[in-house]
Amino acid sequence: MNKKFAKESFTIMNELVLPNDTNTLNNLMGGRLLHWMDIAAAISAQKHCNRIVVTASVDNVSFRHPVKLGDVISIEAKVTRAFNTSVEVQLQVYAQNIPSGSRIKSNEAFYTFVAIDQNSRTIAVPELVPETEEEKELFDGALRRRQLRLILAGKMKPEEASELYNFFNQIGAK
Amino acid sequence: MNKKFAKESFTIMNELVLPNDTNTLNNLMGGRLLHWMDIAAAISAQKHCNRIVVTASVDNVSFRHPVKLGDVISIEAKVTRAFNTSVEVQLQVYAQNIPSGSRIKSNEAFYTFVAIDQNSRTIAVPELVPETEEEKELFDGALRRRQLRLILAGKMKPEEASELYNFFNQIGAK
Amino acid sequence: MNKKFAKESFTIMNELVLPNDTNTLNNLMGGRLLHWMDIAAAISAQKHCNRIVVTASVDNVSFRHPVKLGDVISIEAKVTRAFNTSVEVQLQVYAQNIPSGSRIKSNEAFYTFVAIDQNSRTIAVPELVPETEEEKELFDGALRRRQLRLILAGKMKPEEASELYNFFNQIGAK
Amino acid sequence: MNKKFAKESFTIMNELVLPNDTNTLNNLMGGRLLHWMDIAAAISAQKHCNRIVVTASVDNVSFRHPVKLGDVISIEAKVTRAFNTSVEVQLQVYAQNIPSGSRIKSNEAFYTFVAIDQNSRTIAVPELVPETEEEKELFDGALRRRQLRLILAGKMKPEEASELYNFFNQIGAK
Amino acid sequence: MNKKFAKESFTIMNELVLPNDTNTLNNLMGGRLLHWMDIAAAISAQKHCNRIVVTASVDNVSFRHPVKLGDVISIEAKVTRAFNTSVEVQLQVYAQNIPSGSRIKSNEAFYTFVAIDQNSRTIAVPELVPETEEEKELFDGALRRRQLRLILAGKMKPEEASELYNFFNQIGAK
Amino acid sequence: MNKKFAKESFTIMNELVLPNDTNTLNNLMGGRLLHWMDIAAAISAQKHCNRIVVTASVDNVSFRHPVKLGDVISIEAKVTRAFNTSVEVQLQVYAQNIPSGSRIKSNEAFYTFVAIDQNSRTIAVPELVPETEEEKELFDGALRRRQLRLILAGKMKPEEASELYNFFNQIGAK
Repeated sequence: MNKKFAKESFTIMNELVLPNDTNTLNNLMGGRLLHWMDIAAAISAQKHCNRIVVTASVDNVSFRHPVKLGDVISIEAKVTRAFNTSVEVQLQVYAQNIPSGSRIKSNEAFYTFVAIDQNSRTIAVPELVPETEEEKELFDGALRRRQLRLILAGKMKPEEASELYNFFNQIGAK
Repeated sequence: MNKKFAKESFTIMNELVLPNDTNTLNNLMGGRLLHWMDIAAAISAQKHCNRIVVTASVDNVSFRHPVKLGDVISIEAKVTRAFNTSVEVQLQVYAQNIPSGSRIKSNEAFYTFVAIDQNSRTIAVPELVPETEEEKELFDGALRRRQLRLILAGKMKPEEASELYNFFNQIGAK
Repeated sequence: MNKKFAKESFTIMNELVLPNDTNTLNNLMGGRLLHWMDIAAAISAQKHCNRIVVTASVDNVSFRHPVKLGDVISIEAKVTRAFNTSVEVQLQVYAQNIPSGSRIKSNEAFYTFVAIDQNSRTIAVPELVPETEEEKELFDGALRRRQLRLILAGKMKPEEASELYNFFNQIGAK
Repeated sequence: MNKKFAKESFTIMNELVLPNDTNTLNNLMGGRLLHWMDIAAAISAQKHCNRIVVTASVDNVSFRHPVKLGDVISIEAKVTRAFNTSVEVQLQVYAQNIPSGSRIKSNEAFYTFVAIDQNSRTIAVPELVPETEEEKELFDGALRRRQLRLILAGKMKPEEASELYNFFNQIGAK
Repeated sequence: MNKKFAKESFTIMNELVLPNDTNTLNNLMGGRLLHWMDIAAAISAQKHCNRIVVTASVDNVSFRHPVKLGDVISIEAKVTRAFNTSVEVQLQVYAQNIPSGSRIKSNEAFYTFVAIDQNSRTIAVPELVPETEEEKELFDGALRRRQLRLILAGKMKPEEASELYNFFNQIGAK
Repeated sequence: MNKKFAKESFTIMNELVLPNDTNTLNNLMGGRLLHWMDIAAAISAQKHCNRIVVTASVDNVSFRHPVKLGDVISIEAKVTRAFNTSVEVQLQVYAQNIPSGSRIKSNEAFYTFVAIDQNSRTIAVPELVPETEEEKELFDGALRRRQLRLILAGKMKPEEASELYNFFNQIGAK
């Protein structure tokens, strides 16, 4: 099984906000953005795994700024860490109003995907090797986010989440 | 400002899984489901607020089971708690294969929405009064989920999240 | 073959009226509503038949009130009567302007569906047993509507439509 | 107010049956066809009225033959008669399997439309002058169909529908 | 292999310009029109070939006039000439503003298609026999357009394009 | 008026080929690709112009390889030259089958756009300054492509197209 770098899964997706993507005040609806983010993240995950992937989870996403009709949504996705048969993908979303030249960070998120074979069975994926400082930080944080995800999905007891527990204890100690 | 009950915002949405909603293995894509959930939750939030609402956040969502082409997605949404200008909506999602009569719980989630006026300014919303035991539990949990949301969005320091802190401490004490 | 009750096929569908569903005066186009009604009715028919169903006919539909962009269409469907290999489904359609809290009955209709097997051959469906007064009335009227449908489709001669003939004769006698 | 001929509103629409238009057996869904028919009929009605039109009703439609994925739907629409502020449009629908060269009549229908001005108020439309034998027959039948429509919508008492009453009486006399 | 006439492949398609087809100034986007033209041309090519066809090329297209939301696009397509396994289709596109009764020629184009069998291999197509003067002119010009197409795609050297070379030389001689 | 570099308008768009984008042999339809290319090119042109732009023309496009359902289309766009009120955009299109890791060049094209103000009047755009060798070659070729475009649209006589004439003469001289 090959190892892979984060840059090999880097994916950019641009989408124009059209009328059907907006509410009656001409703002992009959050669900439409979550849909685009899922497609961008799935492309990125597939580049890493060279397999068909299915969405396993999306972490907490906040929508900070309204995005308007006619704006361009630019989504940047890359794999942060691989586990046995799954990967975590980081998404950074920017909204550009191109006539005015403005570009703001709309939001960011982490999606996870499971790789499957043609019979829909999970299958092992290549390891991710972080290179830059930022990639190493994302790689380390992935374990903590995974524990929170498992707790929130009811698949892990909080007291077993050692990474997360240490994180909260250190915080409490401040 | 009127008070309202959870049942007043209860909303059911049924959607048929069509080819464009699926990947090449004929499974519903997660992003499409997040999009439908956003619409169902927005309708529920609007029923409570009698205002246009915009998505503020979506909490961690896990996708447990593959949903197939031709299945019917049934989404049940209701408001669990109102804050000053926002509401939390609980979503329960079921996938039905109607010819076989099977119906499984696909996943659940919490979305939050902010109510806005015609000038896109936030505006106060009615209080939610929980009635049943289940509604009271959801109402109480909403505060804890809100703190986790604010921490994850970087808007609250973990040590200020007293509700959540107690929750984790009790766990740690076990 | 099991018998079934009307409530077992009861289906609610909510749809948000988006820009592409409307004409240049921002009113929902009739054809889009007929499309949604067909999907809601098909889900209801499938719940009764536990089979794939195909649309056989739609009865006369009138559109009484304009429905606006941003309104929520709420469709309630249930099976009224089963024939050998087909069912009649009643649809009640409401348009809600949620910010204002208004809810008007937009229209109602009857669709019929034929149940088919995997080779696209028609197949017998469960009997419907009406329970309430309203369900019994719909059950009785289904025969009359079926005769009118067959006459209008050129598959029955008017003089053979005894149910309908009596209905019109009684009217003529008034 | 000008008079107009049926041929002036004659409209042809061709649509390719794509995956999202079909059920899991690859057959065109009835509701999708009703949607296309509404658009074709609205274009035809607008050609006659030179006004924006809104769908007022659709008469009983039967779906006789399954239409397959990849087939071409060909819809022919023309105005059959104008009333004060509304028109009746006849639709003939053909399904072509182009590789095999087959072309079958899928179904036919009558839609009615009301003409409106920019303030959404109904407005008078040009008279239709039938020319051919077929157009004259459709013109005469339009009155009878209108009465049936009004009865079924609860806007006319059956005993007032003289055209329809005579039609049924003659039938009963046979 | 049968010969066929241009009129046998003549196809009319009408499409209503909806919100999602337009930019923020409510003008039809060029790419959406190119998409509709491809479908209309493919239907026409299939009528001639009685085969599934795939788009091989589109010639230079100019967009002369803005087309507005609510306008009706009317596309007329017909085969101008058949080569061994491919056909050239001419498209004439009109934009109608139906309330005002205006109808302008929006643009015209030539698309080419290759006929394929069920294994996606190219397959011979019927010859086209031009009948009218206009059809003969289109038939003759098809050879010149084909040479320009092959040069622009890098599949033919300019000096081998005798038809085109003569055309430019005569022009140069003026 | 600022000058701008090609890299400032560089735009990447990734799209997943979904069922509705394909024909009955599961190949991407050419018209759908032309639609995506138009959106990618318009985003690129808007980045250069900081204005709303409308499609003025698309040059000859050839489709060389079939693209399959589930493939990822990756479009790279950048401005090659600006004229008074318009820009030429080069598009390079790649099709990736991500599970297999294959990536082929599907096709390339040149689209032109006109910049307009809020009243839909054409407006001057920044000059483009080519930097690399490849950009200079594209910049020079843009004049020749513009002349061919104007000739094909009937807006320039071939004998006035000095750039193109020299190009063909040199060819003829070989």
